[in-house]
Amino acid sequence: MSWLDEVPWNGDGLVAVVAQDFTSNRVLTVAWMNREALQRTAETNQAVYWSRSRKKLWRKGEESGYTQKVRELRIDCDADAILLKVEQVGGIACHTGRESCFFRKLENGKWVTVDPVLKDPKLIYNK
Amino acid sequence: MSWLDEVPWNGDGLVAVVAQDFTSNRVLTVAWMNREALQRTAETNQAVYWSRSRKKLWRKGEESGYTQKVRELRIDCDADAILLKVEQVGGIACHTGRESCFFRKLENGKWVTVDPVLKDPKLIYNK
Repeated sequence: MSWLDEVPWNGDGLVAVVAQDFTSNRVLTVAWMNREALQRTAETNQAVYWSRSRKKLWRKGEESGYTQKVRELRIDCDADAILLKVEQVGGIACHTGRESCFFRKLENGKWVTVDPVLKDPKLIYNK
Repeated sequence: MSWLDEVPWNGDGLVAVVAQDFTSNRVLTVAWMNREALQRTAETNQAVYWSRSRKKLWRKGEESGYTQKVRELRIDCDADAILLKVEQVGGIACHTGRESCFFRKLENGKWVTVDPVLKDPKLIYNK
């Protein structure tokens, strides 16, 4: 049995994936993979996700250049989540130009943005 | 509008949640919350999840004693995932008696267990 068969793909054929920065240890993103995305990720050591909105494979950073080099690939006890430890090229994982997608914190009943924009998204995407 | 209304609950009324240890920075678990679980988590500063298998609210550690004290609650850019930074009581988040649920690593096409059991689950659950 292939290691890919040990993943209990959900009804949509997907599994949740957490990407964590190998150096800073920050949780960068939560995304989804289908079987092909996971296989390609393992083969290429580059994070490849399944875009649920665009319904296609999406190599992280294919537009922005901010790819994720995979250093470790882990699975959890009930195998319904994957953890990638990655080198985040450029130090920016979020399309808003921030290090992490988790830049808002709950403070007194409000989501407050607490992390800085490192690069203007206009400069990232309109090359 | 309440901060809870900003979460785009999925078709099952759930959102994915990553718990990260506040001190070791390890990613401990991925679980799910419904609206009530998230509200209780914020009110009590104790992680409360929705158990998809048992279909009920589940205060992490209610059986094992290994509760999660919430130090930070974050949301991602498209608001479809939550990040909890927690103090993991007892240093054990996994029902297998390990620190983290992500104790298996992909090595040469196999999922290999790389983290030690810190406490025998029999001793955790049969008190």
